[in-house]
Amino acid sequence: MRRRNLSVVLGAVAAHSPLARPLSRADVAGRVGLTRAAVSSLVDELIGRGALTEAETAPDGRVGRPGRALSVSDEGPAGLGLEIGVTHLGACVVDLRGEPRVWRRADRANAGRPAGQVLAELAALAAEAEAEAHGLGLRVEGRVLAVPGVVPNGPVGRVERAPNLGWCALDVADHWPDPATVPEPENEANLGALAEYWSAEQAEQTFVHVSADAGIGAALVIDGRLFRGARGFAGELGHVPVHPDGLPCPCGARGCLEQYAGQAAVLREAGLPQYGPGAPGAAEAGDPVVLLAERASAGHAPTLAALDRAGRALGLALTSAVDLIDPDGLVLGGTYAELAEWLLPSVRAELADRVTVRPWTAEALRPSALGRRGPVLGAARTGVRRIMADPTLLPVR
Amino acid sequence: MRRRNLSVVLGAVAAHSPLARPLSRADVAGRVGLTRAAVSSLVDELIGRGALTEAETAPDGRVGRPGRALSVSDEGPAGLGLEIGVTHLGACVVDLRGEPRVWRRADRANAGRPAGQVLAELAALAAEAEAEAHGLGLRVEGRVLAVPGVVPNGPVGRVERAPNLGWCALDVADHWPDPATVPEPENEANLGALAEYWSAEQAEQTFVHVSADAGIGAALVIDGRLFRGARGFAGELGHVPVHPDGLPCPCGARGCLEQYAGQAAVLREAGLPQYGPGAPGAAEAGDPVVLLAERASAGHAPTLAALDRAGRALGLALTSAVDLIDPDGLVLGGTYAELAEWLLPSVRAELADRVTVRPWTAEALRPSALGRRGPVLGAARTGVRRIMADPTLLPVR
Repeated sequence: MRRRNLSVVLGAVAAHSPLARPLSRADVAGRVGLTRAAVSSLVDELIGRGALTEAETAPDGRVGRPGRALSVSDEGPAGLGLEIGVTHLGACVVDLRGEPRVWRRADRANAGRPAGQVLAELAALAAEAEAEAHGLGLRVEGRVLAVPGVVPNGPVGRVERAPNLGWCALDVADHWPDPATVPEPENEANLGALAEYWSAEQAEQTFVHVSADAGIGAALVIDGRLFRGARGFAGELGHVPVHPDGLPCPCGARGCLEQYAGQAAVLREAGLPQYGPGAPGAAEAGDPVVLLAERASAGHAPTLAALDRAGRALGLALTSAVDLIDPDGLVLGGTYAELAEWLLPSVRAELADRVTVRPWTAEALRPSALGRRGPVLGAARTGVRRIMADPTLLPVR
Repeated sequence: MRRRNLSVVLGAVAAHSPLARPLSRADVAGRVGLTRAAVSSLVDELIGRGALTEAETAPDGRVGRPGRALSVSDEGPAGLGLEIGVTHLGACVVDLRGEPRVWRRADRANAGRPAGQVLAELAALAAEAEAEAHGLGLRVEGRVLAVPGVVPNGPVGRVERAPNLGWCALDVADHWPDPATVPEPENEANLGALAEYWSAEQAEQTFVHVSADAGIGAALVIDGRLFRGARGFAGELGHVPVHPDGLPCPCGARGCLEQYAGQAAVLREAGLPQYGPGAPGAAEAGDPVVLLAERASAGHAPTLAALDRAGRALGLALTSAVDLIDPDGLVLGGTYAELAEWLLPSVRAELADRVTVRPWTAEALRPSALGRRGPVLGAARTGVRRIMADPTLLPVR
């Protein structure tokens, strides 16, 4: 019960806009429906655990004692998000307010490399990020790792399969150098969807979030909750068949969406195969998504055609998602957000042509504002939200 | 609170097997954790509302008073399920135990006929079913109508679109002859899935239920609850694109599953177009599903090829469902259940070829035991389950 009340009080302070007038203990008591004495005791504990700070407010000219203003701590507890992409590693530290404070990103060709090597390099990047966070007065209390693969509901720590990395039935802890800092893996599309849900001003309650990088994942938020599927494998949009007799896919099937709208396919169609995630030297050649956006902006016909084709294929796969799930909306995240200007018209046209049995509007498909930062931000915020739900996870200082 | 307790007591009696030893008021008190006095008062009210009966048990030779055995009434309150198919009308009455007591079915070519005419004929069939139920001591307290179309989450009573009937934005009450007996429409696939969930010995908690008749619908049960989608349109499997540049569909799109695995498509491929749902005189020509099963049993090559082709297309669409939703299982209901012997091999083969990123077993796809009776049975049981959840819906006699 005290655990729940700690979370309620912390949540009430977090929900208070920092731009509004200072929030006192009495204000919190009024909002959460507990006595002032109870709230004061809870606030003291939250301050002791480093979750809240209380500062003296500037005198406002009125008669009376100077006020004391509560806020969620921007020092102390923090969440570390990590990310393994096919062509990069990433890290992000957010404070307890969910604000990103440290970013790290390194280009790396991770496909086909030994998992131990990739995870050791990521652990080094994570240590750098933690050290920088420490310099800002932050201490990491939760670590989550975004991976481009399927993560089952159990056992914890297992990546079932990440075809674009070449991973199969891998336990992260088996390859992580320091047992004290092993991150919990989660599907990157799921984390991107959560970041979107937590960030959006007016989030849809039921939506499909597409998370594109080298591969294509998706995640389902249903009635405001992430739906992971019966075993944790929901949202495998990249392997939805769009052209059943079409191109073979490394997954073993044919005509999967990734073969038409994945990064390698788009670069190939745009006449830029040398920038593809598998190409030798591609990691040093520059950011292929930036390159695609530049060429599309300049009216480069093969690039525009490639993006149109990708959008058509994506629209086909999303038609199945709309028909089956009936979401409020669809969100294009990851690298698709940066290419939205050229993808949206053809995705929307395909949906308009094919979603015919129910009402559907073009605006129900929108790009994410987080773009490629979504999954790693979602990973970092996941750790912080666990603390918000149970502040007793924090040690008393 | 009393309403909830009435439901708890009624549920406890319903959960007791009629083959087990007689259930006394004291037994119920022990099971639900209420006092004997409270349970006795609740039982009296449930008897007064016609939901429970209490009979003297036969003496068992032991010393003591003869017992009194409680059971859910098989007279009194009942649910009426109605159904409009493309080629038939149906009605079913279930008692409060959920047992079907009255069945009615009439062949009718409903496609393209004025909705008022179809609904007037259904109302007549419903009146016949209610009269027969009345003769069995049953009185209908809830009426639900299974329709092959999309039924939005609101407004109540609206069918948004039923392309195979030619209905659009239709309010059932506007065309039903008697305002006192207007049934509430619901998508037939949703009702078939609920019937399956309520009937199965060991139901999957998350499954996709395919409900085939002239058209193809599906429904999603997620964590033991029907998921209707953001606006009530989830599960439109029949219009999932399987061959994007393929056959045109009356819905306005191309290559929809129904054009490859719908009844008309299968009959056409089997060389039996004259039995198709749209063909003149088809209603009198006999049951096309029985005919297909007979020909397939006899080894009729075009029929076997047509069913194989339908199964392949169905497997393709279900691949999308598995990739996106990650269900525990898939259930083939409606007419597909009667053709399962010939459909299962090709559906399973397609799933095995295409669901590659996660584990998948052939047995996760199974036929429904209810077959074509699922939707109308689900409609009838929906009414009864509302009473079980709130027995105060029943008048005191």
